[in-house]
Amino acid sequence: MDNISFMDRAAVLAQALPYIQKYSGKIVVIKYGGNAMIDDDLKQAVMSDLVLLQLVGIHVVLVHGGGPEISAMLKKIGKESKFINGLRYTDKETADIVQMVLGGKVNKDLVALVERHHGKALGLCGIDGGLLKAKKLESEVDLGYVGDITQVNAKPVLDALAGGYIPVIATVASDAAGNVYNINADTAAARIAAELHAENLILMTDIRGLLADKDREETLIPHVCVSDVPALKREGTISGGMIPKIDCCVETVRRGVKKAVIIDGRVPHSILIEILTDEGIGTMFT
Amino acid sequence: MDNISFMDRAAVLAQALPYIQKYSGKIVVIKYGGNAMIDDDLKQAVMSDLVLLQLVGIHVVLVHGGGPEISAMLKKIGKESKFINGLRYTDKETADIVQMVLGGKVNKDLVALVERHHGKALGLCGIDGGLLKAKKLESEVDLGYVGDITQVNAKPVLDALAGGYIPVIATVASDAAGNVYNINADTAAARIAAELHAENLILMTDIRGLLADKDREETLIPHVCVSDVPALKREGTISGGMIPKIDCCVETVRRGVKKAVIIDGRVPHSILIEILTDEGIGTMFT
Amino acid sequence: MDNISFMDRAAVLAQALPYIQKYSGKIVVIKYGGNAMIDDDLKQAVMSDLVLLQLVGIHVVLVHGGGPEISAMLKKIGKESKFINGLRYTDKETADIVQMVLGGKVNKDLVALVERHHGKALGLCGIDGGLLKAKKLESEVDLGYVGDITQVNAKPVLDALAGGYIPVIATVASDAAGNVYNINADTAAARIAAELHAENLILMTDIRGLLADKDREETLIPHVCVSDVPALKREGTISGGMIPKIDCCVETVRRGVKKAVIIDGRVPHSILIEILTDEGIGTMFT
Amino acid sequence: MDNISFMDRAAVLAQALPYIQKYSGKIVVIKYGGNAMIDDDLKQAVMSDLVLLQLVGIHVVLVHGGGPEISAMLKKIGKESKFINGLRYTDKETADIVQMVLGGKVNKDLVALVERHHGKALGLCGIDGGLLKAKKLESEVDLGYVGDITQVNAKPVLDALAGGYIPVIATVASDAAGNVYNINADTAAARIAAELHAENLILMTDIRGLLADKDREETLIPHVCVSDVPALKREGTISGGMIPKIDCCVETVRRGVKKAVIIDGRVPHSILIEILTDEGIGTMFT
Amino acid sequence: MDNISFMDRAAVLAQALPYIQKYSGKIVVIKYGGNAMIDDDLKQAVMSDLVLLQLVGIHVVLVHGGGPEISAMLKKIGKESKFINGLRYTDKETADIVQMVLGGKVNKDLVALVERHHGKALGLCGIDGGLLKAKKLESEVDLGYVGDITQVNAKPVLDALAGGYIPVIATVASDAAGNVYNINADTAAARIAAELHAENLILMTDIRGLLADKDREETLIPHVCVSDVPALKREGTISGGMIPKIDCCVETVRRGVKKAVIIDGRVPHSILIEILTDEGIGTMFT
Amino acid sequence: MDNISFMDRAAVLAQALPYIQKYSGKIVVIKYGGNAMIDDDLKQAVMSDLVLLQLVGIHVVLVHGGGPEISAMLKKIGKESKFINGLRYTDKETADIVQMVLGGKVNKDLVALVERHHGKALGLCGIDGGLLKAKKLESEVDLGYVGDITQVNAKPVLDALAGGYIPVIATVASDAAGNVYNINADTAAARIAAELHAENLILMTDIRGLLADKDREETLIPHVCVSDVPALKREGTISGGMIPKIDCCVETVRRGVKKAVIIDGRVPHSILIEILTDEGIGTMFT
Repeated sequence: MDNISFMDRAAVLAQALPYIQKYSGKIVVIKYGGNAMIDDDLKQAVMSDLVLLQLVGIHVVLVHGGGPEISAMLKKIGKESKFINGLRYTDKETADIVQMVLGGKVNKDLVALVERHHGKALGLCGIDGGLLKAKKLESEVDLGYVGDITQVNAKPVLDALAGGYIPVIATVASDAAGNVYNINADTAAARIAAELHAENLILMTDIRGLLADKDREETLIPHVCVSDVPALKREGTISGGMIPKIDCCVETVRRGVKKAVIIDGRVPHSILIEILTDEGIGTMFT
Repeated sequence: MDNISFMDRAAVLAQALPYIQKYSGKIVVIKYGGNAMIDDDLKQAVMSDLVLLQLVGIHVVLVHGGGPEISAMLKKIGKESKFINGLRYTDKETADIVQMVLGGKVNKDLVALVERHHGKALGLCGIDGGLLKAKKLESEVDLGYVGDITQVNAKPVLDALAGGYIPVIATVASDAAGNVYNINADTAAARIAAELHAENLILMTDIRGLLADKDREETLIPHVCVSDVPALKREGTISGGMIPKIDCCVETVRRGVKKAVIIDGRVPHSILIEILTDEGIGTMFT
Repeated sequence: MDNISFMDRAAVLAQALPYIQKYSGKIVVIKYGGNAMIDDDLKQAVMSDLVLLQLVGIHVVLVHGGGPEISAMLKKIGKESKFINGLRYTDKETADIVQMVLGGKVNKDLVALVERHHGKALGLCGIDGGLLKAKKLESEVDLGYVGDITQVNAKPVLDALAGGYIPVIATVASDAAGNVYNINADTAAARIAAELHAENLILMTDIRGLLADKDREETLIPHVCVSDVPALKREGTISGGMIPKIDCCVETVRRGVKKAVIIDGRVPHSILIEILTDEGIGTMFT
Repeated sequence: MDNISFMDRAAVLAQALPYIQKYSGKIVVIKYGGNAMIDDDLKQAVMSDLVLLQLVGIHVVLVHGGGPEISAMLKKIGKESKFINGLRYTDKETADIVQMVLGGKVNKDLVALVERHHGKALGLCGIDGGLLKAKKLESEVDLGYVGDITQVNAKPVLDALAGGYIPVIATVASDAAGNVYNINADTAAARIAAELHAENLILMTDIRGLLADKDREETLIPHVCVSDVPALKREGTISGGMIPKIDCCVETVRRGVKKAVIIDGRVPHSILIEILTDEGIGTMFT
Repeated sequence: MDNISFMDRAAVLAQALPYIQKYSGKIVVIKYGGNAMIDDDLKQAVMSDLVLLQLVGIHVVLVHGGGPEISAMLKKIGKESKFINGLRYTDKETADIVQMVLGGKVNKDLVALVERHHGKALGLCGIDGGLLKAKKLESEVDLGYVGDITQVNAKPVLDALAGGYIPVIATVASDAAGNVYNINADTAAARIAAELHAENLILMTDIRGLLADKDREETLIPHVCVSDVPALKREGTISGGMIPKIDCCVETVRRGVKKAVIIDGRVPHSILIEILTDEGIGTMFT
Repeated sequence: MDNISFMDRAAVLAQALPYIQKYSGKIVVIKYGGNAMIDDDLKQAVMSDLVLLQLVGIHVVLVHGGGPEISAMLKKIGKESKFINGLRYTDKETADIVQMVLGGKVNKDLVALVERHHGKALGLCGIDGGLLKAKKLESEVDLGYVGDITQVNAKPVLDALAGGYIPVIATVASDAAGNVYNINADTAAARIAAELHAENLILMTDIRGLLADKDREETLIPHVCVSDVPALKREGTISGGMIPKIDCCVETVRRGVKKAVIIDGRVPHSILIEILTDEGIGTMFT
């Protein structure tokens, strides 16, 4: 990269203009996760991207989970992680650990990281200011304190944006009786994006996007219309772990968000590439 | 209490008028801790008091630690709590646990409790919005990640108050390099009170106040001028665990807070009694 | 009262919380009159109640007449008060006296009294800022300058509330030609409450409320639905002087005010009891 | 006047431009009294002038007394007006009458008159919002409830101006104990002008201004520097009833008001002439 | 004029009150042109009128062309002015001259003139802030860069008014491709008035107004209803150069402006006469 | 440039972060001129840079002259440009042409160009809103209407920035008598930068910067302290046409602007390079 001349650098900056114009003053909700949350270089790049976007007038909201950190902590207290259909079985003790790890460790570490890039962030969880209300998720097998969002209150997020902070949101939520639930972060991001009338929902993953042939990255499908999703499911192009993520995208677009994108978080600065260039990184749903 | 007639009740309310007038629009910082944070009835009473005070136009800020919860969690992961001169030795692993327990569990539980009393709260720790900056505490024996506050940034607290939230603050703080420190909650409350130009700092404890004869509660000293503290220390009236708490009070008053009070958190609604009645509960430093 | 412990006092304050929450930021219009306006202790208690309510964030508006003071002044100038069907016959000279006594004496004395309780009040009459417009009341017998409200302009009242003042309103009004009319204070309070979208209209009277058996106070009817009023009139439960007062209540509720209450002004702090406790004082119409 | 062509009319309007520019956004306090308050045509002209000035962006404040109306009312109740050194002896009963007549009758009638010229006014007395605080005037002979202003609180007047109202002020005031005093209107206007940092204080009188030879109107002195007043008193040019009025002017200028003017209220639209033309009407003190 | 007494002057001012009340806070768009833009005395009078109206709270917007100045400049560069059906044939070179003369000379000279009357003005043309968008005017014969307004963006005009400036607007406009067009000033004024929801559009001309008999000024028709215009055209009362001007008036009224007036700019202060007196100067269309 | 990968592009954007942070919310005044104002590609690049900077929260102000356009116009009217000591001799006729060409042609063309890059601009000259006041420049030989700035009024520029416009300023100015002067654009930019408390003044030129050896571009001096300028003049490094430009830089820094930079306008996007990269383009004075 050092071999790029300063004139080329200026040209690159100049070419970002129409993209910044497009998103100026708009809200972009980013579901942060996967490799981009583990690899330190990627992590630094994500934080730098967030601060840059905020600075050029784009309102970014970061939503995160933290599966690996939860599992590690559970292991530390001698408790095994137990998954049912891909969802963590969450007894009361696990729910406490989830709240602690997500709301106290992962969340605040991200806030500290934003600040190290000279940005300002505020770490919230779904409990703060009544941001997320939940009830027990209905399912065939009992999952314990796994929650289903019943209500999103945008005020604390909008207050944080108005105060010049990047809201960093850990996805736990409470009900009226004070029970705390573990919430799927993709779903939470999708619901928050809808409530905020976001311009864009970005889900960071560890795959290249939706592939026509899942073994060949060059078969990436750059753009999918949400009305085509049922057919893609039937023919098996959308399958396995992609299903819930793409369902989130579809749901978000249905609730009025202009587009939802699945991007490859393993690429450094993938958020900037998605927002500020015309490159077809990942798969966009509209 | 049920035998108080409604006329007497109205009279009690009417008598609160001058006290509300005195504190209207002012900031009161409350260091929450001790028994009032353990006993469930007391806890409910404290939350109800906070919501009432906020509602009548008094800006309350709650600062809390959480020693017992930290010790319990450490025990759970098979680590023993180690104290040196009354301060917790905090290695990196302990610092992580402190951050998690205070910022993720204790803090968010309090936020949820405020909401159950129909108030609105925002759970912050010293990392959020750069609220508290710290460095390693200098001491003869190494205490690990025990921090000394170097800077207080009132903006996130004032933003929360302006948004109509009760700020609930967990006392961990970071330095420029991203290290996270365990901060003594009394000290943090004192520094925050000073930075906010609070009207009053209230330290909730498990004792009646400063006693002339420490074995007899009826010898409570209701009012101490900060200039008399050195003499009281010399003569032994102020001794042991009281010293750091009273030093906090003195420091706060020196930095411009009108008064600092040590109250007995074991008395239900002790905060209301302190603020809204003329009863001499606890010991006031001016 | 002095025998109530400070812990009980705090408990009483704490129990006011849900009521303050309910009325916070809402407008309550109080028609002041009867004994509570004559007895000095009651008067002081009313003023203290107003200032307390304003302070805890409830917007109070006081509307008053002043029959006894008008009669006294008329007597002083050697003119007899003359009533037709309970309404004062008001010739031009009497209208001048009404305006003077209500707008200059009673009104300003109340403003001064609020201030002695460290509150801030602004004394208005219906002429100020075009608050009340009236025309001659149509009736079988000529009543002179007795007026019927044609228009209520809420702006001067809302301006006063926004400025932090308790609006104290004397019920005289003018027409486009500059004639000044004597307005029934109950009616004026009802119309002002409706125009302000008040939460509650409180009529202070010298009776316990609506009684099933008018000779036994223990037969108080605490709650009446406005749709039941015609039946209660037919069966004679509502009769005599109660009719116009209850008609005001009905009219106010019909115009959108949530509730209208007739309370017993002879009870000290009856306003606080009505608003801040769950006691069934008086009769509520919804 | 009907013989003035419309071109000449436009020229007159155009010539007012620099005067409006000079006073735009400034406060002018007018002490209203004398013939201009009795003759109906003059009264209408004054009200029209006030509304015009307010409309073109000049903040007018009207201060009034009402000696004749007070005397008439006292006579009505069979009480003789008693003057000592030109000041009304004011026992408690008289004080009540003063408050009633000024605050309830004269004041509200003026408010109604402003409104008939399609302006908006708010009638205040010194009691409202703590506008004027007074104590008993010290004098050799006891004058009863004649007051000396101890404090002026500009807030209610500024609130009224900000709300778009012309403040009309009756000059009674109270003390901390709730006593109500009769205040000289010239003095009150002077003190209010000073507190409001007014641009101009205008005293309406029934004379042409200060005359070099008091019997010849053509000897009008158009401009007096306040430092020349003592000499003018010594040589007798300023004498009799002029002394207190001119003392008010001097005091006002000393407290920072740019100029104080004594104008002849018997001339129709004398206020407009003073403010919007370069005519030397009356005597100006600077 | 000097023979008008100061009392008559005040009366004239007082009589302007209802007219100022009527236009207070409203927008008046004035198309400036003809003799009033050539004769220096008339010019000064117009500027003085604008500043006066702005000062008394009426929002004036000045729209101007500059035919004679354009012709003079064209002559200077040795190019003849060429008119087709009364419209200037505008080749590229002419368009440049039009832009320069209107936007750089006439416009800025007017701004300087306003300032010499102690007003504040901002000189804009249709290009600034995207105020006027145009396309090539369709016509039988090619007119070159003569434009037809496609869009009016009121924001820069409203911003200027909010900043306390009189917007002075030169009528050139651009299209998306950057071509600059010469716009008829009457039309531009009409469209701007409609977009601003103006109260009044005033077209300054060199005639007395619409005359029943075009040779006798005393046959002025003071008021025309827009629905009567077709008939007046048919019968020949509206003919020749009057047609496009009156079409502008009709169009403006149809788009919601309350009235449009053709006034005689040769009369000094004709704008003041139109707005601030009840004189029938010119012809009003409603 | 097309061979830069999208990952490298993102990295370039990410590297701009600290520079945007540094200038965020600050004012940068750019003196536009030379080749960058003639070559169409360079012109487009400059406009694109301005719009980008405005969008990312940097307040840009463009100041321009237009020597070549003036000369061309003068030639068109058959008048020769006459220069004395590098300054244009400006008789009344020339002053008119300067005002027309700068204020009407060059200025408005730039505004149109900004808009074609989807930015918003407002074209002002020194006459608008009293932005620049001038007097005749004192010099040994008479230069006619060449002006010396006597006063800068920042309000119209700040108003334009607050309204979201890029202020584009043509450097003509008037005096109290209405004379219009031709102002040197470098000087005007320097004075405006000082009055706006700008962070940076950028002078666009047609040279590489200050060279140690004027024939070899590689001897560019990247940074000069203003206190070293006198020595550099004495030794001849600063000479000829560089002297007035560097004097502007020195003057600006002396008046409190943090830095002034001479950049090479022949390099595309030289403004972005200067502000958003760490490249040493041109010579910086601090």
